[in-house]
Amino acid sequence: MISKNQLKFLRSLHQKKGRLEQQAFLVEGEKSVVELLHADWKVISLYASDAFIARYTPLLQQGDYPVYPASAAALTQASTLSNNHTALAVVASPRPAALQTSGWTLALDQINDPGNLGTLLRIADWYGFRQLVCSPGSAELTNPKVISASKGSFLRIPLHVCPLEDFFSQLDPQVPVLGAFLEGDSIHQLTADQLGDSGVLLLGNEAQGIRPELQAQVNCRVTIPSFGQAESLNVGVAGAILCDNIQRLRARTSTR
Amino acid sequence: MISKNQLKFLRSLHQKKGRLEQQAFLVEGEKSVVELLHADWKVISLYASDAFIARYTPLLQQGDYPVYPASAAALTQASTLSNNHTALAVVASPRPAALQTSGWTLALDQINDPGNLGTLLRIADWYGFRQLVCSPGSAELTNPKVISASKGSFLRIPLHVCPLEDFFSQLDPQVPVLGAFLEGDSIHQLTADQLGDSGVLLLGNEAQGIRPELQAQVNCRVTIPSFGQAESLNVGVAGAILCDNIQRLRARTSTR
Repeated sequence: MISKNQLKFLRSLHQKKGRLEQQAFLVEGEKSVVELLHADWKVISLYASDAFIARYTPLLQQGDYPVYPASAAALTQASTLSNNHTALAVVASPRPAALQTSGWTLALDQINDPGNLGTLLRIADWYGFRQLVCSPGSAELTNPKVISASKGSFLRIPLHVCPLEDFFSQLDPQVPVLGAFLEGDSIHQLTADQLGDSGVLLLGNEAQGIRPELQAQVNCRVTIPSFGQAESLNVGVAGAILCDNIQRLRARTSTR
Repeated sequence: MISKNQLKFLRSLHQKKGRLEQQAFLVEGEKSVVELLHADWKVISLYASDAFIARYTPLLQQGDYPVYPASAAALTQASTLSNNHTALAVVASPRPAALQTSGWTLALDQINDPGNLGTLLRIADWYGFRQLVCSPGSAELTNPKVISASKGSFLRIPLHVCPLEDFFSQLDPQVPVLGAFLEGDSIHQLTADQLGDSGVLLLGNEAQGIRPELQAQVNCRVTIPSFGQAESLNVGVAGAILCDNIQRLRARTSTR
């Protein structure tokens, strides 16, 4: 059972204000919760169906958090998902990880949609990027829609929020900074010698693109060539295509 | 103003049953409606804000459909979008276009999520694919979420619903049929001579993949190589990456 006070607490975490006050956030649904419980994160409490508790007993016994059995109806009521028949975890908000200036970074200028941010975390994870760096005012990592769309990748890819100008000022000026523009060079013409062990892929807001004040930081403007008539691609889709081209070229060099 | 009867009619089009009975569907929001009005589709009626009507007077004067001025509140009430301050069109459901057996086809086996289907229409349009062919039981084209996610691409890319076995039986056996599998050959190792002027890219349901009974139709099993730890990619994202690789290689051949 979920008590009235527990429900009130869980529902307060649907909102940014509650997450900031409590320094905690929700992870929802069987797949994400199981990935969480296998990772080294601070779980505060777990609410789960009897079936979930039975299925994962050994895993739950390793934890030091309270486990509250709950019905599907109660879990759904406490959840942001339209249906949650399995589990819901309350997790302590992570401390910021150290910002890295080597390896590959996905930098996001004003991506406000939490679904897009979660999708981009998943893509960064698939393509082995080291971190995400987001401008202030982006969707926050602990938004339930970010967590849900990331499909567990929030556990692996550190997300930093800082002014992108500050991040760029710490980079070696030799590092390639690829920026996605509507009028850049075709990403299909990029060559492996333009890339390296470290680099940045910068994506801008879908409506406005990369802010003019950041454009001077970009030393390689790239575009996804179109073969048809659609006007644009979703920023998550565009990010995936650019990451795929970058890693395809880098892999080619490293196997030579 | 939107009358009670009009509102009832518009809201009936939120549901599949209503769309089938009325043989009509909704196009919502300024951008999609304006693209629609520029295209050669049968518009039944248009509901729009005074500002929209003022902005597009010449365009509206070319049409033979009634235009009903409506407040933002009334438009939002009639719409499936969480906010609609601009316009809402009722459109006659399109007749099925002729199924093509040449050019490139994106074939979808059991893609149920309307957002994914709309995204894939947009991607097929960006990459110049000729048509989409979906197995029965997929999300339908006239679902408002498909229309909205396609960002106008529903106007350009014909979508056919038919058993994929029937579609494949009509194809020349020489035509490459690429199927997305978790354990295929890396799409980065694909070469231009494996492609041609006609071909099929087949994507399966995100959870189940391509059904076993269709797998014999695939003559080239492809996989998106992973460079990190995410377990999978969203089917829309995966489709975009595969289309990008196909068209990159085909463009290289044609410019030689």
